[in-house]
Amino acid sequence: MLKEYPLQKVFTLLEPGPVLLVTTADGRKKNIMTISWSFAMSFSPVFGIVTGPWNHSFETLMKTRQCTVAVPGADLLEKVVGIGMCSGTDTDKFKKFTLSAKKAKEVSSPLIGECLFNMECKLEDYVEEHGILILSCVRAWENTTRTERRTLHAVGDGTFVADGEKFDLHEKMSEKLPFS
Amino acid sequence: MLKEYPLQKVFTLLEPGPVLLVTTADGRKKNIMTISWSFAMSFSPVFGIVTGPWNHSFETLMKTRQCTVAVPGADLLEKVVGIGMCSGTDTDKFKKFTLSAKKAKEVSSPLIGECLFNMECKLEDYVEEHGILILSCVRAWENTTRTERRTLHAVGDGTFVADGEKFDLHEKMSEKLPFS
Repeated sequence: MLKEYPLQKVFTLLEPGPVLLVTTADGRKKNIMTISWSFAMSFSPVFGIVTGPWNHSFETLMKTRQCTVAVPGADLLEKVVGIGMCSGTDTDKFKKFTLSAKKAKEVSSPLIGECLFNMECKLEDYVEEHGILILSCVRAWENTTRTERRTLHAVGDGTFVADGEKFDLHEKMSEKLPFS
Repeated sequence: MLKEYPLQKVFTLLEPGPVLLVTTADGRKKNIMTISWSFAMSFSPVFGIVTGPWNHSFETLMKTRQCTVAVPGADLLEKVVGIGMCSGTDTDKFKKFTLSAKKAKEVSSPLIGECLFNMECKLEDYVEEHGILILSCVRAWENTTRTERRTLHAVGDGTFVADGEKFDLHEKMSEKLPFS
């Protein structure tokens, strides 16, 4: 069900700006947080997310220096919002939102079986002044069996936008693309 | 045609992850670059973009510590890609792509009349190690006359996705929203 996804394409999962689910595990328990402040920053599988001590997962992420970043499809919107509205301090979010925790290969934080993509990540750097965590993806997975392929974009006012019409301009851009 | 847009809502222009056009001006000439690596980082009008010396505009942005960040609609896709494929060293991009440079109020870099939104920005910080520029928006504008309201998301492989279906979950999220 989960098929390995090439690391050289990982930045294309971040660049469009989808809502993300980030899992952590401290050995005793696992958790999930919803993140919509993220960014691609090169053609390598290194990218940034913005979070801080107000998220229960932050402490675990800083301690273990690992997390899994998952890209949910639009069919998971209710779960994505629900996950963002409760805390791992008193909630087992995998159980509450009936999501499958799958074992990762390189990190202790689980994959989310129902997401379109999962990226196993190591924490590379923490720009404390701005709350920016730089993550390096070491292995990535695609769930090719999901029917809903649209991702979600959070607007920040409680509304969300799913992917719509697609345009292919790769021929016009070929000389600036890292792969064809 | 351009109507002032509230600063408290500026983060909602960045959070969905749209492709951006960034203008600069050094007194002698003005330029535009296409940026798809950007991120919201709080509910304040402060956000990040990733760029570096490989962009002609970077030097001007660092020197003037000002820029204008514009959000183009999906109808401007060909221009957005064209702007990213040529350089301000030998091209007047406003002329080549028939875009209107409008005078900003707080910065020397022009607004782009045809874009949905324009944010006049000051450079707050430069995280050189990661190529991250932290910008603070001091005034924002909306072009309410544009018919095409969808923004674009760059995938990074030469394809783009326009905004599609919208979902409103603000009631479920109200306690975590900075405004209603």
